Amino acid sequence: MAAFEGGRGLDAFEAERVLSFDNGRAATILGRFHSTGDGESAPVLLKLSLASPFTTPDELLQGLAGMDLTLTNYSGAEYSYYDAEVTSGLCRYAMEVISPASQRQITRATPVERYMVEETEEVFREVVLPYQQHQAGKIKWIESVVSLKTEAERNLFIGGSGLGFVVNIDTKWTSHARPISADPTVRAGWHKAPWTKDLYLLAISRDPSLLSLRDLRGEEGAELCDSMRQALEDCARTVYGVPKRKLRIFFHYQPQFYRLHAHCTTCNFVNPGCEVERAHLLTTVAANLRQDGAYYEKATLVYTVREGETLCKKLFPGELEELAHHQEASQRMAAGDEEARAAAAAAD
Amino acid sequence: MAAFEGGRGLDAFEAERVLSFDNGRAATILGRFHSTGDGESAPVLLKLSLASPFTTPDELLQGLAGMDLTLTNYSGAEYSYYDAEVTSGLCRYAMEVISPASQRQITRATPVERYMVEETEEVFREVVLPYQQHQAGKIKWIESVVSLKTEAERNLFIGGSGLGFVVNIDTKWTSHARPISADPTVRAGWHKAPWTKDLYLLAISRDPSLLSLRDLRGEEGAELCDSMRQALEDCARTVYGVPKRKLRIFFHYQPQFYRLHAHCTTCNFVNPGCEVERAHLLTTVAANLRQDGAYYEKATLVYTVREGETLCKKLFPGELEELAHHQEASQRMAAGDEEARAAAAAAD
Repeated sequence: MAAFEGGRGLDAFEAERVLSFDNGRAATILGRFHSTGDGESAPVLLKLSLASPFTTPDELLQGLAGMDLTLTNYSGAEYSYYDAEVTSGLCRYAMEVISPASQRQITRATPVERYMVEETEEVFREVVLPYQQHQAGKIKWIESVVSLKTEAERNLFIGGSGLGFVVNIDTKWTSHARPISADPTVRAGWHKAPWTKDLYLLAISRDPSLLSLRDLRGEEGAELCDSMRQALEDCARTVYGVPKRKLRIFFHYQPQFYRLHAHCTTCNFVNPGCEVERAHLLTTVAANLRQDGAYYEKATLVYTVREGETLCKKLFPGELEELAHHQEASQRMAAGDEEARAAAAAAD
Repeated sequence: MAAFEGGRGLDAFEAERVLSFDNGRAATILGRFHSTGDGESAPVLLKLSLASPFTTPDELLQGLAGMDLTLTNYSGAEYSYYDAEVTSGLCRYAMEVISPASQRQITRATPVERYMVEETEEVFREVVLPYQQHQAGKIKWIESVVSLKTEAERNLFIGGSGLGFVVNIDTKWTSHARPISADPTVRAGWHKAPWTKDLYLLAISRDPSLLSLRDLRGEEGAELCDSMRQALEDCARTVYGVPKRKLRIFFHYQPQFYRLHAHCTTCNFVNPGCEVERAHLLTTVAANLRQDGAYYEKATLVYTVREGETLCKKLFPGELEELAHHQEASQRMAAGDEEARAAAAAAD
């Protein structure tokens, strides 16, 4: 087909099926053009992706004051949510306002560079282990979670091999139906609900000596992996109707907090946190431990650190200044700063 | 701060810095509300994300015919690209039209379920190896690429340990400046260009006996990993100014085609294809081979297969009907079919 120029070329398009519809922001439509006698009745794909009316940060800033806001949700504290219409009302943003915003919230909202680290056995012992032990000493909340004194309504299982573990509904699973309750009648309504596509469970070890997968050893470690995997699969199937073949079950290294815990999500979507340099499948970890009981004592583990975080400063202090140069230009470029682009292209 | 109701609440907002601006589709802005005498001068974060004017697939279909199209790019064949304005002109979609669309293009555009597979040594030998060998026999183009008869303008390096490999600019790197040329003057302009944030290089083995990482053995295999990694790091640094610490270098298993090849991307973004169940870091592969030369001969490798693809049918034919049930409801749900949601919730 020749491309059509201008005007309402889609008048002649007959849609057959919407193949995908990501909240209207991206969509794929299968159809045909009306046969106009020249034989154009072959299948046609339309792929749409929503574009912003603002092409530069400055345009967006200028558009802000003209937006009409409707409050959609209010936390009662610093968070409020709005539907923000741009002038005509046809173009809308969902807007979250954090006021007042803490330094921590500002830091988290600021894009940072990530750098790759290769943590050898030696680097682990000398640099990372002391850091992990120090951090582990600060998480007082973990004992009350694994003993069900808190978050009991989120608990789906307690038991398992060794000192055991709990399986909880992850707090990041925000599409989960409310209320989250241990009441069997409430839970019966969760089975095969549409939001189970976002499944996110957590298995947290009760053994305080296990800070991360670095501490797993031999058959005992492999059995704990198998046991956690089995419990997560059982909970996913029985509580949510999600089959084992849909599950990605993995540890993070480095983890968010230093008490061994496994994540369980569905594999259809690419969630942040499942990248090869962060995630370790329990299947692989168990197999590695059975092949060499000291695998995770000796292994070089590769992961990313964020510019500015403690481990980054501890691991390669000598390189930071040089990398910061690259980072600064890159951050300003991400924010649409054309001068930074030019400068980065010119510099060497 | 109390949430504000209705109207132009942002009149009083003073922007300080745009922290992120993802093509205007998502943005984070740091600022303050004008002090109005009640002490509200703390930092404030606004997080915006563009919302579609269409909340259901039906609304989108009804809106199609009213869109005003402007041709932005035309391949000369079945691909054409438009700026599609929704009525007012303030809300726009970028639209790709594929006409005529092949069955393969339709299949690729249709969301499919993915299922987890654990490929043991035995399953590899009996089911997967014959499939790999059959597929490898079909890729005639690879020899002309690795001997630089084709795609020579994309080549950055040829050499390396063993039978060697080439390092090429991946065709998926679509933001790369044009023309792609081996001319040193042209290439000098690539250094530290803003689009290098999307860096995507490929190292492809010249050894036809290496179909995938399953075929790597011992020190020889480890050296090939090291050699590929070194060459990719060198090309990224010298040609594009991207430092080693920004690079994720990995094999896919299963790969897209059966000739050993390593991918090299930047680690700041989560690209599809870097998930733990698909990607294997060359650092880890080399270390595993040095610890046990037959690691990849014996390992159980975990990956996902797409419903309907050959390996899926070969690997678990007995489960497919049951899983298809789950899949069908899920697909229709993704397309916004409310009846499918209700049926899935009711069924068991």
